[in-house]
Amino acid sequence: MTQYAEKVITAQPMPNKILLGPGPSMAHPRVLQAMMQSMIGYLDPDFIEVLDEISGHLKNVYKTNQSTLAIPGTGSAGMEAGLSSLLEPGDKVIMCIYGFFCERMVEMGERIGANVIPIRAEWGAPFPEELLEEEIKKHSDVKLVTAIHGETSTGIAQPLEGISKIAKQHDALFMVDAVTTFSGRNIEIDNWNIDYAYSASQKCLGAPPGLSPAVVSDRALETIRNRKTKPVSWYLDLELLCKYWGEERVYHHTAPVSMLYGINEALRIVMEEGLETRFERHRINAEALNAGLQAIGLNAVAPQGSRLEQITPVWIPDGVDDMEVRDMLLNEFSIELGRGLGDFSGKVWRVGLMGESSKQEYVLTFLSAIESILSRVGYEVAQGAAVAEATKIYNTYPGKKKS
Amino acid sequence: MTQYAEKVITAQPMPNKILLGPGPSMAHPRVLQAMMQSMIGYLDPDFIEVLDEISGHLKNVYKTNQSTLAIPGTGSAGMEAGLSSLLEPGDKVIMCIYGFFCERMVEMGERIGANVIPIRAEWGAPFPEELLEEEIKKHSDVKLVTAIHGETSTGIAQPLEGISKIAKQHDALFMVDAVTTFSGRNIEIDNWNIDYAYSASQKCLGAPPGLSPAVVSDRALETIRNRKTKPVSWYLDLELLCKYWGEERVYHHTAPVSMLYGINEALRIVMEEGLETRFERHRINAEALNAGLQAIGLNAVAPQGSRLEQITPVWIPDGVDDMEVRDMLLNEFSIELGRGLGDFSGKVWRVGLMGESSKQEYVLTFLSAIESILSRVGYEVAQGAAVAEATKIYNTYPGKKKS
Repeated sequence: MTQYAEKVITAQPMPNKILLGPGPSMAHPRVLQAMMQSMIGYLDPDFIEVLDEISGHLKNVYKTNQSTLAIPGTGSAGMEAGLSSLLEPGDKVIMCIYGFFCERMVEMGERIGANVIPIRAEWGAPFPEELLEEEIKKHSDVKLVTAIHGETSTGIAQPLEGISKIAKQHDALFMVDAVTTFSGRNIEIDNWNIDYAYSASQKCLGAPPGLSPAVVSDRALETIRNRKTKPVSWYLDLELLCKYWGEERVYHHTAPVSMLYGINEALRIVMEEGLETRFERHRINAEALNAGLQAIGLNAVAPQGSRLEQITPVWIPDGVDDMEVRDMLLNEFSIELGRGLGDFSGKVWRVGLMGESSKQEYVLTFLSAIESILSRVGYEVAQGAAVAEATKIYNTYPGKKKS
Repeated sequence: MTQYAEKVITAQPMPNKILLGPGPSMAHPRVLQAMMQSMIGYLDPDFIEVLDEISGHLKNVYKTNQSTLAIPGTGSAGMEAGLSSLLEPGDKVIMCIYGFFCERMVEMGERIGANVIPIRAEWGAPFPEELLEEEIKKHSDVKLVTAIHGETSTGIAQPLEGISKIAKQHDALFMVDAVTTFSGRNIEIDNWNIDYAYSASQKCLGAPPGLSPAVVSDRALETIRNRKTKPVSWYLDLELLCKYWGEERVYHHTAPVSMLYGINEALRIVMEEGLETRFERHRINAEALNAGLQAIGLNAVAPQGSRLEQITPVWIPDGVDDMEVRDMLLNEFSIELGRGLGDFSGKVWRVGLMGESSKQEYVLTFLSAIESILSRVGYEVAQGAAVAEATKIYNTYPGKKKS
C-alpha cells in the first residue's frame, strides 16, 4: 500500500502536566473514568436518562427552570449557536466589548449578517453600564445585548445585573458568555433575567474540552420559533438542539456519548462539592495566588474588586521574555501558563485556576517555580516571598476547602 | 440551596449493548483507554505531535497528500463546514440527491444562502450520472457538486469517479460525504479528484461520536482564501481550522483533547489491521448478513452490486410492527437496530456493521435474535434458516478476518 504520510507514533501515555492556562484545566479522574463507559444509541432509553440527568444538573448550576442542554462543540460553538439562532440578518445587536473574546462575538455577529453595534470600552476594567444606557437609547429596535461574565483575556469579572436591567428596559434579549465562570462563580439565569448563556466543559467544570453547556430562556426560544428566516447554521440551530434535548427527542446530530458521560460525572462532582463551597475554593486560591504574585511585583491587570477568580492575567515585568519563561515553566516544571491574547500578546501572562486546577498545591508549586525562573532570567526576586505571602492567605482560612 | 431540578442519578456503569444501528457503533477498548490520558494545552509541543500523527493517519486512510484535520463536531458539522466554507451567498451548487442525508445538505445549503440546485433521483438506487451531466450543461458557473459515498438511509454505495469527472469537466469543486464509509470502504481523494470530504468518528473508525475527520484539497483551500465574503460560520470556517491543523498553528478553538486521543488510537488500529483487510472484513460480514436476511424474506432496499457493506436497510415485512420488533431486540437481546428515516420511516430497518460492530459474532447473534422475534410477532420464519445461510457464507472465507 502507498503510504501518503509516514507513520509517526507519538509517545504514550501523555505525560501529566499542571495546567494553569486558560483551559483545558485538569480533568477529574472520575470524569475520565466515566468516559470509558460503553457506547450507546442516541435515543436509547438508558441514554435518555443520562441526558435528563445532565439537564437537571445544568438547571441547578445555572439556577434556572428553563431549557438546558450541552451543545456538541466547544465554547465558541456555544457563542455561535446563540448569535446565529437569536439574530436574523439585519437584526440589531449591541455588544459590550472589553476584551479578546468580546471581539470574537463581533466577528461572528458580522459573519451572520447581523447589524452589530459594538461599544468598545477599556480592556482590563469592567464595562461601564452607562455606555450601554447611552447607546441603547438611540435605537428603538435592539434585539440582543451581549456581555461576557468572565473575560479571560483581561481577567475581568463583569457584573451582569445592571446590563440585564438596561436590556430588559429596552425589550432586548440578553446573552451571556459564561465560558470561564460556569460552576466556579455564581450566575443566576432566572433571577438575573438572562436569555441565553453558554459555557465550556474544560474550564471550571473539570471535564475535557468539546461540549458547551448552555441554557436557553423560554423567551429566547419563542423568539427563535418566530424567526422569519431559518438560522444560517443547521448544526448550531438552538431550536433543533432543544428539540433533541427536550421532551420531543427529535434526532438532530449523533450525540457525543463519551463526552456527555464525562460532563455528567463532572456535574455530579460539582453538586457533591456544593456550589458555594466550590465558589469559595476558587476565591481562596485566587486570593492566595494574587498575594503571592504581588509580593514579587507581578501585578494583576484587573483592579481589585473586579478580579475573576478563574484566571489572573498579570503584566510581564519589563525586560523579561514572555516565551522564554513559559517554555522554562513547561519544560522544567511541566506547568502550562497562559499567554496574552490580542492587544495583550507578549505583555501579559494568564494564570488559570479553574475546576480541578484550582488547588492550593498547584498555587504553591507555581509560585515556587516562577520565583525560581524569574531570578534566573535577570528579574530580581526575594526567593520565597511569593510562597510566604500565599501561605499567609491560606492560613487565614483554616478548615476551608482549598483542593 | 434551592434545587432547580431533582437530583436523579442514573445507573452506572452504562450496560453493554450490541450496536447494530447507524452509529455510534461500538468503540474499541483501546480507544476508550487512550481517552483517559491527561489533559494538555492545545499548543503544547507534546500535543502538536498528536495532531501531526492524526493528520498523517488521515492522509493514509483518505489516500491524499493534501490537508487533513478533525473538525470539532459530528459528521453534520463536517457537512456544514464544507458547504459554508466553499459556498458564498448566491453560489451555484448542484446536489445529487438519493436519500435522507442528501436532503440535509439541501437544507444546509439553502440556509447559508447558496443557490442550491438539487437533482432528485430515486431513493434506494445509485444516482444516475447522466442526470448530473444534463443539468450541469445548463449552467456556466456551477461552483460545487456534492454527493454522498454511502447513503445510510437507503444503503446505497455511490460510485464517485464518474460524478467527479463531470464536475471537473465543468470546473466545479467536488464535495463528498464519507461519514459512513471512511476506513470501511475504499475512497481515494487524490486519484478521484475530490476537493473536500468529511466523515464521523463513530462509524467505521470505532471511536465515540464527536469529531469529523476531514480532508481539504489545495484547490478548495485556494477557493476559500479567495472568497469575497467571509463564511457565515466562524466555528466551522475551514480556513481557520486548517490554520490550527497546519504549520501555522494559529489558535482557533480549544481542541477536544480526549476525543483526539481517541481517534488517534482508532486510526492506529485501522493502520495495524490494514485498509484492505478492514474493507474485506466489512464485505464478508455484510455478505453473510445479507444472505441470512434474505433466507427469512427480509429483502435489502439496495440492489445487489450497489449495496453498502456498512449499513443494510431492509424492508419490514407486511404486518410486522417496526417499533415492537426494535424494542424486543433492545430489551431482550441488548441489540440496537436502526430505524428508517424520512420517507422510509416505519418501512425499513437498518442493520449497521461498522468498525468494531462489523464482527461475525454480532451478525450471528442478530440473525438468531431476529428469527426468534419475528416468529413470535406472527411472521413465519424457518427457525435457523438465517443463521445457516450466513454460516454458509462465512465458510466460503476460511482464514479471513471476520472479527
